[in-house]
Amino acid sequence: MKVIIGVMGPGEEATDDDIKKAYLLGKFIGGQKWILLSGGRNKGVMHSASRGARDNGGLTMGILPGEDYKALSEYVDIPVLTGMGNARNNINVLTSNVIVAIGTGPGTTSEISLAIKSGKDVILLNSSKGARELFRNMGNEKVYIADSVEEAIEILSRLV
Amino acid sequence: MKVIIGVMGPGEEATDDDIKKAYLLGKFIGGQKWILLSGGRNKGVMHSASRGARDNGGLTMGILPGEDYKALSEYVDIPVLTGMGNARNNINVLTSNVIVAIGTGPGTTSEISLAIKSGKDVILLNSSKGARELFRNMGNEKVYIADSVEEAIEILSRLV
Amino acid sequence: MKVIIGVMGPGEEATDDDIKKAYLLGKFIGGQKWILLSGGRNKGVMHSASRGARDNGGLTMGILPGEDYKALSEYVDIPVLTGMGNARNNINVLTSNVIVAIGTGPGTTSEISLAIKSGKDVILLNSSKGARELFRNMGNEKVYIADSVEEAIEILSRLV
Amino acid sequence: MKVIIGVMGPGEEATDDDIKKAYLLGKFIGGQKWILLSGGRNKGVMHSASRGARDNGGLTMGILPGEDYKALSEYVDIPVLTGMGNARNNINVLTSNVIVAIGTGPGTTSEISLAIKSGKDVILLNSSKGARELFRNMGNEKVYIADSVEEAIEILSRLV
Repeated sequence: MKVIIGVMGPGEEATDDDIKKAYLLGKFIGGQKWILLSGGRNKGVMHSASRGARDNGGLTMGILPGEDYKALSEYVDIPVLTGMGNARNNINVLTSNVIVAIGTGPGTTSEISLAIKSGKDVILLNSSKGARELFRNMGNEKVYIADSVEEAIEILSRLV
Repeated sequence: MKVIIGVMGPGEEATDDDIKKAYLLGKFIGGQKWILLSGGRNKGVMHSASRGARDNGGLTMGILPGEDYKALSEYVDIPVLTGMGNARNNINVLTSNVIVAIGTGPGTTSEISLAIKSGKDVILLNSSKGARELFRNMGNEKVYIADSVEEAIEILSRLV
Repeated sequence: MKVIIGVMGPGEEATDDDIKKAYLLGKFIGGQKWILLSGGRNKGVMHSASRGARDNGGLTMGILPGEDYKALSEYVDIPVLTGMGNARNNINVLTSNVIVAIGTGPGTTSEISLAIKSGKDVILLNSSKGARELFRNMGNEKVYIADSVEEAIEILSRLV
Repeated sequence: MKVIIGVMGPGEEATDDDIKKAYLLGKFIGGQKWILLSGGRNKGVMHSASRGARDNGGLTMGILPGEDYKALSEYVDIPVLTGMGNARNNINVLTSNVIVAIGTGPGTTSEISLAIKSGKDVILLNSSKGARELFRNMGNEKVYIADSVEEAIEILSRLV
C-alpha cells in the first residue's frame, strides 16, 4: 500500500509564494515515491504541487469535482472523477495519510476543518494568522504549523 | 417552494449558550413557517434548534451523515439519509437559502467554509474571535456577525 | 417523523403511460399526507408524481443532482440540492421508506439496484419484462411487481 | 495520464467462475500497465481482479465505501477512502475509461446502470441472461457482451 500525501490549497487565488512552496513540497513528495494527492485542477497549489512531484519522478493523483477531464492539471497521472463538487473535499482528506494545506481560501479551510474532524494530521504552511490560531486550537496536537517548506518536510518525514 | 434556513453548529461540543441560542433561533424560524434544516443528530445545536422550531409549529429537516435513523433527533420531521458522512455538510449548505452557524467546531467551520465557497449568505453567532476574523475577511459582504439572537433574527429577516 | 415515499422513474424518456401512472400514484401519496420524494427535475415521472401529490394537498421533496434550482420541477416544495450528480440516487433510496419505480431507464435501474442493495422494499410498475425478471430474482421478497396503479397502491398501503 | 480500467462485480456473492475470470482479466490489465480500478474490498471480484493485476506487475486502485482501511483488499496499492457507502459506485464508473462487469449482483447492476447513464463503454461478462437482455437494449452500442475472458480482452483492447 502506497503512502499518499494530500497537498491542498487555493486554485485561482493562490499567491506566487503559495505556488512556489507547493512546487518544492511536491518535488520532495515525488522524490520519496509517495503519491501526491491534490484537488486535481490546473490552477494554483494543486497544479504546482503536481508539477513538482512529476518533475521528480513521482506519481500524482487528482480528486476532481467534475465528471470529465475539463480543468484537469496536465501533471495529474491518475484523475479520480467524483462529479460531486466540493463534497469531494472530504475524499481528499480521508484518502490522504497526512495533509499539507498551503495558503488560505474557503476550499482549503473546509479541508483543514474536515481533516481535524476526522482526526487526521494536518500541516499548515502559508496559512493566515487567523487560520493558524483558529485551527491550532481546534485540532490540538494533530495540527502543525510550518514556517517554511523545510520545516513542513521535516514534520512530514516524522509523521509518515 | 419553501424557504429553508440551515442552522449549523457543534453536536457533542456545543456550549450551554450555543444550545440556548439555537433553541431561540429555531423557535423564530419555526414561527415564520420556514423549514429548519440541520445536521439532524440528537446532540447540541442541531437538536436544540430543531426542538425550538417544532415547539413553535415549524417543520424540521435533518441531513444525516448515516444510512439509518440511529442518532436522529426526535425533533426532526424529515430525515434525509445520505450515508456519506461529513461530505453531507456540502448538501446542508447548498440546500439552505441562508445559513446560521452557532458556535465553533470543525464540522461547523467546514460548513462556513463551504458556504463561502458557494457564495451563500452565512450569519455567525457565538463564533470564536479567531473564526469571526478569518471568515469575515474571507467571505466579504456575504458573512455577517451577529452578537445576539435578536441580531441574528434581524439579519436573517432582511436576507430572506 | 413523516412517512416518505420515493417515486423514481425516467425523466426525458418516460412514456405517456409512465407519466399518467406517476400522476395517479402521486395523488394517492399526497392524499395520505405522506411526503413524496423524487429526483426533483421538471421532467417525466418525477415531475408528474410531484404534480399529483401537490394537486391533492401533499408535500413534495426533490433530491436534485445539481447545485442550483435550474431544472427544478415547479411542483417540488422542498428542493434538496446535492451537487453530486447521479450519486444522489443513493440518497433517494436511503431516505425513502418505500420506493416505487415507474418505467425503465438507466437512472431508474440504478435506483432499483441500490434499493435492493440496502434492503429497502421496492415496487415495480411499468417495468420492462427484462427488468421485472432480473430484479424480482435479485431482491427476493423485498421486490414487488404491480400490474396497475391500484395494485401499487394496495402494496404500498400494506408496507407503510 | 494513465489508462484506468474498472472491474466491477459481486463481493460475497461472487461465484467461483466470476472469481477465476476476474483474476485472469486483472492479470491482463496489469500486464498492459493500465491501472486496475475496483471497489477495493477484500472479497469476490474486486479482490481477485486486484490480485491478478498485482501478480502481473500492475498498479491497483480501490474506491472504498468506508472511511478506513477495514475490509481493504491487500492487493490494492492505492485505496481511495470515500466514506460515502454505495454512492461511491458512481465514482467507480466516472473514473474508469472502460468498465468490465463480471457477474450479477445489485451493486454491480447499479454500476452498469450508472455507466450507461454516463455514456461509458461497459463490457458484460458472466452476466445473467436477464441482465444481458436488459442492459444490452438500454445501452445500445455502448454495452458489449463477452462470452469469455478472451473475448472481453479482445473488446477491451479495441476500446482503449
